[in-house]
Amino acid sequence: MTDLANDRLLRALMREPVDRTPIWIMRQAGRYLPEYRATRARAGSFMDLCQNPELACEVTLQPLARFPLDAAILFSDILTVPDAMGLGLYFETGEGPRFRDPVRSLDAIERLPVPDPEQELRYVMDAVRLIRRELNGTVPLIGFAGSPWTLATYMIEGAGSRDFAETKRLLYGEPQAMHALLQKVAAAVSAYLQAQIRSGAQAVMIFDTWGGSLTPRHYREFSLAYMQRIINELPREHEGRRVPVTLFTKGGGAWLEWQADAGADALGLDWTIEIAEAADRVGDRVALQGNLDPSVLYAGDDVVRAEATRILDGFPFPTGHVFNLGHGIHPGIDPDRVAALVETVQSYRGG
Amino acid sequence: MTDLANDRLLRALMREPVDRTPIWIMRQAGRYLPEYRATRARAGSFMDLCQNPELACEVTLQPLARFPLDAAILFSDILTVPDAMGLGLYFETGEGPRFRDPVRSLDAIERLPVPDPEQELRYVMDAVRLIRRELNGTVPLIGFAGSPWTLATYMIEGAGSRDFAETKRLLYGEPQAMHALLQKVAAAVSAYLQAQIRSGAQAVMIFDTWGGSLTPRHYREFSLAYMQRIINELPREHEGRRVPVTLFTKGGGAWLEWQADAGADALGLDWTIEIAEAADRVGDRVALQGNLDPSVLYAGDDVVRAEATRILDGFPFPTGHVFNLGHGIHPGIDPDRVAALVETVQSYRGG
Repeated sequence: MTDLANDRLLRALMREPVDRTPIWIMRQAGRYLPEYRATRARAGSFMDLCQNPELACEVTLQPLARFPLDAAILFSDILTVPDAMGLGLYFETGEGPRFRDPVRSLDAIERLPVPDPEQELRYVMDAVRLIRRELNGTVPLIGFAGSPWTLATYMIEGAGSRDFAETKRLLYGEPQAMHALLQKVAAAVSAYLQAQIRSGAQAVMIFDTWGGSLTPRHYREFSLAYMQRIINELPREHEGRRVPVTLFTKGGGAWLEWQADAGADALGLDWTIEIAEAADRVGDRVALQGNLDPSVLYAGDDVVRAEATRILDGFPFPTGHVFNLGHGIHPGIDPDRVAALVETVQSYRGG
Repeated sequence: MTDLANDRLLRALMREPVDRTPIWIMRQAGRYLPEYRATRARAGSFMDLCQNPELACEVTLQPLARFPLDAAILFSDILTVPDAMGLGLYFETGEGPRFRDPVRSLDAIERLPVPDPEQELRYVMDAVRLIRRELNGTVPLIGFAGSPWTLATYMIEGAGSRDFAETKRLLYGEPQAMHALLQKVAAAVSAYLQAQIRSGAQAVMIFDTWGGSLTPRHYREFSLAYMQRIINELPREHEGRRVPVTLFTKGGGAWLEWQADAGADALGLDWTIEIAEAADRVGDRVALQGNLDPSVLYAGDDVVRAEATRILDGFPFPTGHVFNLGHGIHPGIDPDRVAALVETVQSYRGG
């Protein structure tokens, strides 16, 4: 078993005793940090940054140099997987991600390759290995991937979407083609997360950003089932330690009981549910991660402290809570607000 | 009491006996209809169409000429109210609505006028009166407004938004200023809906499109409380009939019990909740409207029939259900799918 100076995150995810609630922040290595913007400017495009292990490592470590966070999270993007499947990811300034070759027919789906993560996504594995070396046992490294459903929406639409017209057209009109696509994406995500764990990721998270756009039964059939399959295929121990898995469906608060049965160690919460209610519903089956509204960080330190304390007060168990935002940090946030947040969580009840 | 040849909608909203489930479709007068696009092209801008009572009446009646729907809904836009408050609404092609003068300071909030609906919004009241005359007692006319919270997000952001940065900044940073704005908008919406009822609207609906972006306690404090205030101020009888009120918070399925206590006769449901579960939670306190995923209409008639029948089967009571989509119909839908949907609902159990 590898030593970790700070293993609070892993312990909380597994509902083992902790001295205080651990905290990390979704998109903690990101545009709100001036040092990130500087590295990004040096890198060229966003994809150049993702694909350069040294620079990806550099930005992964930046927030840890500023704040005493309890975890690092790999700097990357959920769309690297469909890019490795040949869709041609690019970023239009101010427009978000796009794919040159969206996938809309069964024929196109059947032609999609399942990438070998040590080949087409080797730059990610190199980054994981490098970050682990640089972290040198201080805090754990979290790996991640997008959920098959979420990746499929981008692969079909060819871009971000509000109403997922093409995706829903396929789901309702050709459900078997949708399943064929999700099976392929799930195989790719599964291999990708397994490779991240082998390369050194000590916990992994699956981001289901768009699962909340589905009806309840379609959520189970088209999103949750594939995440469950991936979770079942992951090695749950590596380097002599359990590798906890967190499943996060944004807008999925109504379906926590189903999520709790999917085999994950922890569930992510957005801010549209009270953590006390969530804890009451899932009991001791899973840990919970969240659930501060990221927009709280637009207010002053006093508001940040009060809102963070409300959540800490609301969680009813002595362990099993990882403090986080309910979604990624907004680019316009002042890093000083993050400092106040981290300090609040870490000093809660004498931390 | 005025006669109505078809009063199923009003009866279902009040949970009175009906021979079959009534159906209307959110945004039924809209871009998916070629005749709408033709009128829109003649009108000039979208706002020109809204502000011309004859043309607004024409497009309101268009879907009724095609489909045997159980209600008409006033053709208008929720943003006419902030426009009448002086914000300068305009539409940028392909960009959605914008305001020339967004509201971001307490000073600007205090200067906002509460418009007189018979003056600044007289074009809406003229449209309501004209539509009632043209409907001539066939089906009821539904009036509507946006919720104060939803209107406030547009008024503060100056446009549609994904993360409501400025709105949340005000909410968390200056909650008293946010309340001052919401009070003013609520007063405007209340007067506006009262005037619609006096002008002939036989039912009204409050669209809370963005209430689902709030934490549970902020939903109650910043959205639901103001909708409740408006509902309490409405005349609940006009022309010898009760005027039912429907409250619809998109993404608010977790909070149905709170909504059921706000004084509305009916609640709108999006598609992220099973109607059977919703009915179980609200019991006989309110009727329910919804809840077909609008994207079902991208599929073939057989899928439309199967999905609509699932919802009809799921609703457990003999009355109290108004069939509708869970959100507005998408512009790309083939009107023939709507015909299949209406036929399915109206022939269900022999209707």
